[in-house]
Amino acid sequence: MKKHITEQFKVLQDTICQALENTDGKAKFQQDLWERPAGGGGRTRVIKKGKIIEKGGVNFSAVWGKTPTKILKVLELPEADFYATGVSIVLHPKNPYVPIIHMNIRYFEMSDGTFWFGGGIDLTPHYIDLKQAQFFHQQLKEVCDRHHPEYYTKFKKWADDYFYLKHRSETRGIGGIFFDHLKETKEKNKVQLFDFVIDIGSIFIPIYTHLMKASKDLPYGEIEEDWQKTRRGRYVEFNLIWDKGTKFGLDTNGRTESILMSLPPLASWEYDFKPKPNSKEAQTQALLRKGIDWINIK
Amino acid sequence: MKKHITEQFKVLQDTICQALENTDGKAKFQQDLWERPAGGGGRTRVIKKGKIIEKGGVNFSAVWGKTPTKILKVLELPEADFYATGVSIVLHPKNPYVPIIHMNIRYFEMSDGTFWFGGGIDLTPHYIDLKQAQFFHQQLKEVCDRHHPEYYTKFKKWADDYFYLKHRSETRGIGGIFFDHLKETKEKNKVQLFDFVIDIGSIFIPIYTHLMKASKDLPYGEIEEDWQKTRRGRYVEFNLIWDKGTKFGLDTNGRTESILMSLPPLASWEYDFKPKPNSKEAQTQALLRKGIDWINIK
Repeated sequence: MKKHITEQFKVLQDTICQALENTDGKAKFQQDLWERPAGGGGRTRVIKKGKIIEKGGVNFSAVWGKTPTKILKVLELPEADFYATGVSIVLHPKNPYVPIIHMNIRYFEMSDGTFWFGGGIDLTPHYIDLKQAQFFHQQLKEVCDRHHPEYYTKFKKWADDYFYLKHRSETRGIGGIFFDHLKETKEKNKVQLFDFVIDIGSIFIPIYTHLMKASKDLPYGEIEEDWQKTRRGRYVEFNLIWDKGTKFGLDTNGRTESILMSLPPLASWEYDFKPKPNSKEAQTQALLRKGIDWINIK
Repeated sequence: MKKHITEQFKVLQDTICQALENTDGKAKFQQDLWERPAGGGGRTRVIKKGKIIEKGGVNFSAVWGKTPTKILKVLELPEADFYATGVSIVLHPKNPYVPIIHMNIRYFEMSDGTFWFGGGIDLTPHYIDLKQAQFFHQQLKEVCDRHHPEYYTKFKKWADDYFYLKHRSETRGIGGIFFDHLKETKEKNKVQLFDFVIDIGSIFIPIYTHLMKASKDLPYGEIEEDWQKTRRGRYVEFNLIWDKGTKFGLDTNGRTESILMSLPPLASWEYDFKPKPNSKEAQTQALLRKGIDWINIK
């Protein structure tokens, strides 16, 4: 089944890249194949200077070998071999009214036979549009509900808690869903868990192409561009300070350029920047908090 | 003596701000006074959009109270009160030929009477000029040599090891000196250690105003600006991923805006960027490694 999951993840990467190129209408993905000396490798695909996407990546990897000591410590596991495969996406759009999106699905297996899935999709709008936020969460809820009545509530809260900049007391964006260590239970066998994960991967394109098309032609000027660069600065802060995946990748000598493809093309920092009261920027800033019920917000 | 050290650090902050304003000729520092709820506070002084300095900060703080659990753990100390004071500087110049500079001096005291000093100055040129690199290290060596024949060698190596981006296998810049836990010995009493630290603080202005003036009017274009933004991106990576001071400050609920004043006004990330072979950029890139004897380089 490991092989089947890996193949399906590759197919998903292909499908997503193709759909993004079609919607963007200009830029094409460039592929870097890489090998991990200790086992496995990946297909890093990056896109830049598109009509809609300014910079982004859709990465696939499948790596294996001796489990790094750091993971064994964190997971409190005895020495063992591991196998890990996943698809990871971050897209930074050009138009500040199009949101930044992140998606990741992953499968992890140990040589003792234990395995689990992880993943999620979350959205970081530079400007929060309540209807789009509602649409985004509604789509995720529908997928979750098809698989388990508690998934959405649980994984939505997990995303709120995970994508959080503690040093700023603000969320990275409007969250989404996030889950890890999703293991086989009496209720759900491996095939059913994988179905759920693939459904998450498959909802990415309908969701994001909708958001791309919805806002790509909205007019903007210097104010919006400046705000976008500030929000991207916060994105950098989250990824480099708090994101466990980034930290783990860099700690275990992962491929730096593949890990840091998530960083934006251009970001800015201004000392103690605060949006003008009652501005669009202040409205978004006020919504960067945990626990908002985006589906029922008015 | 704690009081004397604190006062001298404040005087140094005043002197440095005044001298930087004079040399810049346009921008003025803005001051934010802040209080730490658990004890102490600081004077954050930031400057922006100067003729020479695009963004920077010269911060003073003196904080005290119960030692945060995280420090006690790292230092393997029993519960105790602490007192910490310091001056911290990061300056991002506008002209890519003027280097980024960082300086920090600090004093730490525990309620059981133990105390130590830390600090250093290091330089991050966007373009490494060998004569300026030599000048910079020569200046630091002269100050060090006045206090101890081994200081320069030891602290130069410490800076090489500390200001290192492990995930890129490159140094942040040309290093400088770095030291921590500098404690009283038979050779050096507290007053002598403080003299050394103040000498480090006092060499900052002659060094940096020299470098500011030397390159502020050199012509540059888009290539140099792009490279500057890339190097600033690396600066962000170091500070958010590896810098212990930043991590510690954010972990212990320090004042976020004072800690992150070190981040540049504008930084960029391009996937797998490599400078053109034999370009000025490639020459600098090749010099971003540990162990270079800058004083005797040709």
